Amino acid sequence: MDKTSKIPLYLQLMDDLIKEIDTGKLLVGEKLPSERELCVIYDLSRITVRQALQELEREGYIYKLHGKGTFVSPASYNQNLVKLYSFTEEMKKIGKTPTTQVVSFHEIALDERLTKKMNLAPLDEVFQIVRLRLANNEPLMYETSYVPKKIFPRLTEKDLKERPMYDIFLQDYHAGVTKAVERFSATTVRKGEAEHLNLTPNHPAMLIKRFAYHDDELIEYTISVARGDKFDYTVELT
Amino acid sequence: MDKTSKIPLYLQLMDDLIKEIDTGKLLVGEKLPSERELCVIYDLSRITVRQALQELEREGYIYKLHGKGTFVSPASYNQNLVKLYSFTEEMKKIGKTPTTQVVSFHEIALDERLTKKMNLAPLDEVFQIVRLRLANNEPLMYETSYVPKKIFPRLTEKDLKERPMYDIFLQDYHAGVTKAVERFSATTVRKGEAEHLNLTPNHPAMLIKRFAYHDDELIEYTISVARGDKFDYTVELT
Repeated sequence: MDKTSKIPLYLQLMDDLIKEIDTGKLLVGEKLPSERELCVIYDLSRITVRQALQELEREGYIYKLHGKGTFVSPASYNQNLVKLYSFTEEMKKIGKTPTTQVVSFHEIALDERLTKKMNLAPLDEVFQIVRLRLANNEPLMYETSYVPKKIFPRLTEKDLKERPMYDIFLQDYHAGVTKAVERFSATTVRKGEAEHLNLTPNHPAMLIKRFAYHDDELIEYTISVARGDKFDYTVELT
Repeated sequence: MDKTSKIPLYLQLMDDLIKEIDTGKLLVGEKLPSERELCVIYDLSRITVRQALQELEREGYIYKLHGKGTFVSPASYNQNLVKLYSFTEEMKKIGKTPTTQVVSFHEIALDERLTKKMNLAPLDEVFQIVRLRLANNEPLMYETSYVPKKIFPRLTEKDLKERPMYDIFLQDYHAGVTKAVERFSATTVRKGEAEHLNLTPNHPAMLIKRFAYHDDELIEYTISVARGDKFDYTVELT
């Protein structure tokens, strides 16, 4: 560390630790030295070390486990918000094996508000499908989908266990998704979700509401809870 | 509540409470009946009432204050991610008065990683500007910007207190923002940020990294922490 430099010390420390991660000197899952040890190793104050670790945590390089220490994170998934994407396809592209667990499958009717949101008639039935999405057996997203029964009358839980939902839509109903509107907000993981995602409650998460259309007909409304440390989303504005 | 309906009871309760909010029977900031009271009023189980309240909280209709109860939230801001936007302009559009507090203003050099990210030469100086963005005096975003000194050599803290940053870029340097790339992820608010935003730490937040360009030159890198309950972002995919 160069204490006479115009580069703030916490940035110098971040740079050094990121290089150790990028070059493989620190491996994914490996424990970092403690705050106190880092102070000694780099001859820095506690406040500087803490700031560097906070920034590294926010940037997704490291994560803290309460009472256990700080560890190197696996890389996160970046989704470019340009064209339609599906979890299954995106994971395959980067060489991961996507799998889906069907947590629950119900036929229900929706309340007035959701009925309007989905352009349904009152008491039209929908399938309410809760699914856990995994990549290489690691749970990443917890999704609740609403799918109109009048559009997909023969949809079963078994179908969803065997094939990606969008494959079923396309192969069995000739209803591919042609447009989607997604709404992003920040939330935290709830207790029931945390159990499925192997996280502690209140872990940061992205909440994504997807309205998916085949031509101009709404065929799916999905609310996804995506691990905040695993996903980020890029958009270009002009 | 219709217990024989195919509409799940928690959805019926949500619908009812949202109607009370939308019609003004429950006002912004007003306290909702407690879980136990709602059980009695609607003759529902605790589990159903809790599920409805959790969903309403996630949808942004209500918020909980630890030990104080549940309250009706003000509406949140939706930003459509189609074209370039600025906080100042967006707030004006919806009739709010935007203001900005400059929290800190430093001339620093960046570490190797950020230097590369910003296409700078080593030891090129930047202004590191931390700002709090408010609408109608309510703090909403905490932003850290890096702006190259070689592009904006005469930028001062006083300028930033008097005029929006993009006005200064355009008026004093003929360098309007023509393109931006934004990267969204979910995080939680840290202690220092929480104090500025009048929140408790670990409140959900959206982390937005903006790379802003004038023509093909990077002129700004900003990291924004936006209150998760106040902002959502919409994108259309085809």
